[in-house]
Amino acid sequence: MVRETLSAIETHTYQSEATGTIRYAVVGLGWWATEMALPALAAASNATVTTLVAEDGINPDTQKLARQYDVDILTTSERFRAVETNVSGQYTLENSSSPPSPETNSDSEANDNTIDTSAYDAVYIATPNAAHLPYAKIAAAQEKAVLCEKPIEASVERGNQLRTCCQRANVPLMTAYRVQMHPLVRYARKLIDQGDIGDVTLVQSHHTQPLLEMSPDTNQWRLDPAQTGYGTSIMDLGVYTVNTARFLLNANPITVSAVTIADTPGFEAVPDDRASAILSFPDGVQLIANTTQRGQHGSGIKIIGTQGSIELRGVFRGQCSLTVAAGDIEGTFEHTQFTLHDEVTAVFEYFADCLLTDTPVSPNGAEGIVDLSVMRAMYADGDESTNRMVSYPEFV
Amino acid sequence: MVRETLSAIETHTYQSEATGTIRYAVVGLGWWATEMALPALAAASNATVTTLVAEDGINPDTQKLARQYDVDILTTSERFRAVETNVSGQYTLENSSSPPSPETNSDSEANDNTIDTSAYDAVYIATPNAAHLPYAKIAAAQEKAVLCEKPIEASVERGNQLRTCCQRANVPLMTAYRVQMHPLVRYARKLIDQGDIGDVTLVQSHHTQPLLEMSPDTNQWRLDPAQTGYGTSIMDLGVYTVNTARFLLNANPITVSAVTIADTPGFEAVPDDRASAILSFPDGVQLIANTTQRGQHGSGIKIIGTQGSIELRGVFRGQCSLTVAAGDIEGTFEHTQFTLHDEVTAVFEYFADCLLTDTPVSPNGAEGIVDLSVMRAMYADGDESTNRMVSYPEFV
Repeated sequence: MVRETLSAIETHTYQSEATGTIRYAVVGLGWWATEMALPALAAASNATVTTLVAEDGINPDTQKLARQYDVDILTTSERFRAVETNVSGQYTLENSSSPPSPETNSDSEANDNTIDTSAYDAVYIATPNAAHLPYAKIAAAQEKAVLCEKPIEASVERGNQLRTCCQRANVPLMTAYRVQMHPLVRYARKLIDQGDIGDVTLVQSHHTQPLLEMSPDTNQWRLDPAQTGYGTSIMDLGVYTVNTARFLLNANPITVSAVTIADTPGFEAVPDDRASAILSFPDGVQLIANTTQRGQHGSGIKIIGTQGSIELRGVFRGQCSLTVAAGDIEGTFEHTQFTLHDEVTAVFEYFADCLLTDTPVSPNGAEGIVDLSVMRAMYADGDESTNRMVSYPEFV
Repeated sequence: MVRETLSAIETHTYQSEATGTIRYAVVGLGWWATEMALPALAAASNATVTTLVAEDGINPDTQKLARQYDVDILTTSERFRAVETNVSGQYTLENSSSPPSPETNSDSEANDNTIDTSAYDAVYIATPNAAHLPYAKIAAAQEKAVLCEKPIEASVERGNQLRTCCQRANVPLMTAYRVQMHPLVRYARKLIDQGDIGDVTLVQSHHTQPLLEMSPDTNQWRLDPAQTGYGTSIMDLGVYTVNTARFLLNANPITVSAVTIADTPGFEAVPDDRASAILSFPDGVQLIANTTQRGQHGSGIKIIGTQGSIELRGVFRGQCSLTVAAGDIEGTFEHTQFTLHDEVTAVFEYFADCLLTDTPVSPNGAEGIVDLSVMRAMYADGDESTNRMVSYPEFV
């Protein structure tokens, strides 16, 4: 029986199926791309990076990255954006076996003002939130598939624009929710869905990190409303709770009650160095969550049902364990070799697989906008009532 | 260093100090007293049970209990209440070495309408919430110390009356918060107090049980507002979060935001088969908690600070582990032999010690009323705003 469980968990580890390789352009070479996304992409079985777009210009660090990942093109935002646009065209997957671009490094394109878009099939956007839209617009104009970091944009309105431009160009759009790729998270969803813990009644979740210890610069984009959007703790960390809870419960919250505070130096421009919320889902399911940019690293989500409970400890930081309990008996499962990098690799592989097999993507752009809609209700500027209705776009 | 920690935890195990024995009368012989309190009291080093007061009358079960614990008196509520009252008198501890009462069982007092109050020094009240006040009034009139189960009464007003009658009779009053007696909880409080996890920013807590699986009778007192008070999930389970968080943080919440639901058959008369809340403490500390009478057993509290975190898993069910983390390093401690019974034994021993040494009691009656004040704000009938101010009695 335990052996069966272990096998069942194993089947929830994403395996890419199609042959072929998707070539990614990576936009935004900050900490996340450098430390997480590029190593993860390098490990993908059906994807590779051919192009790096340096938002802040080309310098020795980005040149070193270009050599390290042996990319064909290292270019600037300006060149990436200078493409001829044709958003009315149909999306077509570039031939993955096309010969390498003649542009093999930044120097080779020194005399050209545009980028050779034939060098990549998909664009991965890992910039600050409010830069997702302009880059997605360019990618759509280039008729490239778009893989966009979370949250999908800085506001619901901008998220809608992003999704619309991809729809009009008929290019696939995915929100890069890596947590959904963790085999224990996928297995937990299955257990809940098949009723193994009975009717779900309550959920608890949290996600915390010490932002200014990780990056002491108070001018960073996460503290700038023009770049981060509604706020920082919910937008950057709480989004994991919102998306993962929606994924696990396969439902959307109806109302939210939330309290935000920002009384830490450096957080003057945003409403939340921390936030706490109550989300009410259909069938009376109540979720509580809090999050802070001013606390030690931690994360977890626990789902209580009438017949049992499921706890995913460390779930948002890639160090996930699954504890399933019924009464006083509980079992804990760990995927000891599965890391944060593996989650991100699985995102690149899954999206590549969808492109190679022409399969609809999930979580898509709409999922990203649903999460932004919930977060907008949580910030609810000036609204002091509990049970604020979440206003969703028409497509939900 | 680890050895030092283990020793430090050990010093937080309550040890009774005085010699002598306090004789308890136990009022209310329901499940809690029968299964938990009486076995725990029997194990106390400085306390014993001499008197049982059967709320629902004397029957073969209560007679069996009387034999099992070798009590001097088994009596009814009516006889217990029929005492001559003299609330103006000073509280004096009965001589613990007085000879056993001539009344040794229910039959021996068959021809008497009152109880021999010289047989006990303190009264432990384990009845439904709204019966605490009438029994405490009698105990105070008998000039006996009062140990009262949580919550201290069904409402703030009744809690105040209970406390006042004990004050007027000058008898000690303790609210039986057993969780405060757990050595890992006491040690956690010390770690927080001495700044080991930095500034606390967030707290998460939950407490759940399947009430109607434990006791299927929908006529039970926990579902009757006349007996339970404001509600059932917060009053019966949430009270653990409120009191333990206040104990750990050594602070009282300023505002609360809460959502209650009762959509389960059997819960028609109360507002909450489940509830979720956000409590805002001084210095911006935010606590989230939820609780349900309709979910599998579970409990835990986690405190996030700027330099580390503390988690007490299973804390409200007497199966507590303490996990202390700083960054990615964490250690987990368990008091493997310390059970729920030991917590309750420690309550009886601690209160006995206070009486034997004439030491002020904590948590006292005021603590019980503070918790009721917070819970009243959580229920906040019809108030739909977030950040509702908690209104405390003047003595807080």
